[in-house]
Amino acid sequence: MVVKVYGPAYGCPKRVLMCLIEKDIEFETVPINLSKGDQNHPDFLKLQPFGEVPVVQDGDYTLYESRAIIRYYAEKYKSQGTDLLGQTIEERGQVEQWLEVEANNFHRPIYDLVIHVVYAPIQGFPSDPKLIEESEKKVGKVLDIYEERLSKSKYLAGDFFSLADLSHLPFTHYMVNQMRKEYMIRSRKNVSAWWDDISNRPSWKKVLQLYKYPV
Amino acid sequence: MVVKVYGPAYGCPKRVLMCLIEKDIEFETVPINLSKGDQNHPDFLKLQPFGEVPVVQDGDYTLYESRAIIRYYAEKYKSQGTDLLGQTIEERGQVEQWLEVEANNFHRPIYDLVIHVVYAPIQGFPSDPKLIEESEKKVGKVLDIYEERLSKSKYLAGDFFSLADLSHLPFTHYMVNQMRKEYMIRSRKNVSAWWDDISNRPSWKKVLQLYKYPV
Repeated sequence: MVVKVYGPAYGCPKRVLMCLIEKDIEFETVPINLSKGDQNHPDFLKLQPFGEVPVVQDGDYTLYESRAIIRYYAEKYKSQGTDLLGQTIEERGQVEQWLEVEANNFHRPIYDLVIHVVYAPIQGFPSDPKLIEESEKKVGKVLDIYEERLSKSKYLAGDFFSLADLSHLPFTHYMVNQMRKEYMIRSRKNVSAWWDDISNRPSWKKVLQLYKYPV
Repeated sequence: MVVKVYGPAYGCPKRVLMCLIEKDIEFETVPINLSKGDQNHPDFLKLQPFGEVPVVQDGDYTLYESRAIIRYYAEKYKSQGTDLLGQTIEERGQVEQWLEVEANNFHRPIYDLVIHVVYAPIQGFPSDPKLIEESEKKVGKVLDIYEERLSKSKYLAGDFFSLADLSHLPFTHYMVNQMRKEYMIRSRKNVSAWWDDISNRPSWKKVLQLYKYPV
């Protein structure tokens, strides 16, 4: 059964795509155009009532929320492709902790930056300079903690690449590229080495090659 | 080894306490006073560099982020106490999905409501009426989706109580009690029955009895 992934152009679905590639799971994609309102179509809302991407359909099993989907496939195919959950329950605990840090501490301010720095000028709505300044400060503080953490282990959850690292790629890519804030990475030695490592994984390069960002 | 839980008075640590009680895991608590700045003490920052509660110490294993901690204990003691992850990988996928919905769709606006409706008058900072109105609308929209979901299954992830339901308790309690917005629950038949069910679990009653909220 081929896994069907909705919305491959966008940031959060790219977590899922990278995970499926790391796990050697066959998939196909269904384009969703958020600026045209595809997410509000009744057929889409039957799959994802909140009108958000990604969603996956795997036979008659439907799942949404990118970090739920990557946990599901990483567990279901634990011994296939790259192991993304650690070897022990204690290692998985660390993966869960840093996945939550990504979602709660990192993603929220960086999402605001993406909206106000990248999308506002393109879509013609006013950006909020105060929010941009505050969000950049928040991201910087998180990266300072990563810098310290990555002085002790190669990856966030330990000396193994995991979902916690993978989950950072789509929005850090925005920061380094579309947002032109690569200095936030390069000014921190360990974060910089970590970024070079994870962003050069063949799975991520394949995601970027196959599924362009909308901007 | 007794698990040590930091910050039992607050909302997020109450997820952990309820989980430990459901799993019959022995624990002790360490009070943290956020309004006195305990979370910024260097000893605390060594445990939790972001200065947030909860943290658990379990022998020499330290873990933070409430939803990571509850996943860790639910998995580590899968067959002890209440099973909170579902019986199959597919059921666990649904648990993960609704845990993510709780964190991303429900918690964010309800947290803003708690800050602006409950804490602003007490701590003497100005509340934002526009944010309150928008947040209440967002919570209402999420509850509408829950109402539909709970017409099809007894709990969010299926016909079994799970981490996804548990994770809603601490902040829905704020809404029903300190915030006096019980009507948001009672105006929705299925949500109302679900709330009565989960908030009457002995584990939650024990949490409330032992660890008062700070306000």
